[in-house]
Amino acid sequence: MVHSDVLDRAFAALADPTRRAVLETLGRQGSATVSELTEPFEISITAMKKHLAVLEEAELITTEKVGRSRHCRLGTDRLDDAMAWISFYQRLWERRLDGLDAYFTLRKGQQES
Amino acid sequence: MVHSDVLDRAFAALADPTRRAVLETLGRQGSATVSELTEPFEISITAMKKHLAVLEEAELITTEKVGRSRHCRLGTDRLDDAMAWISFYQRLWERRLDGLDAYFTLRKGQQES
Repeated sequence: MVHSDVLDRAFAALADPTRRAVLETLGRQGSATVSELTEPFEISITAMKKHLAVLEEAELITTEKVGRSRHCRLGTDRLDDAMAWISFYQRLWERRLDGLDAYFTLRKGQQES
Repeated sequence: MVHSDVLDRAFAALADPTRRAVLETLGRQGSATVSELTEPFEISITAMKKHLAVLEEAELITTEKVGRSRHCRLGTDRLDDAMAWISFYQRLWERRLDGLDAYFTLRKGQQES
């Protein structure tokens, strides 16, 4: 299992609507500059840079200086780690629901008979 | 789309190893008392109660007083909301990867010919 620090940082980074919107944009476009990412929001470039630093620290994005602008892209490994935990958890949960469903079907059958 | 406060709280609640472990236990067992949940950790009942309050506030669990103990269960709706966002984001991401894969396959083909 992934070291929990990695998941702590990934989920904490996801706990903000601006940061989630940035990931959605990068998911759609593949790459964007800091200015392009800031444009749709009513926040300063400085505020956006702080959000990007949190995402970069969580390794959910990578950034690269190209000429005078900084280009952002989605990271891959950490995202996979977070997804792996979520999928694992989701499977546990679905198995519980299947169990409950079977239980209620059984109960219903018993009440009807 | 779900109101972002809901996702903020859900992801923030997931950003802690103890809270994730609690969800895993509830996913496996379905229900557990506060004492049962505290047992595997080197933390006090008070510290666990704080974690459970965060999970309950995020609506990831529900708790119910039964006699002298409090029983915890997984919540459903909020979990589904968080999963919906993640799945949406994962699809965006996979589509990007498919696009990149197609691009590199194309490039490789061009280089080989």
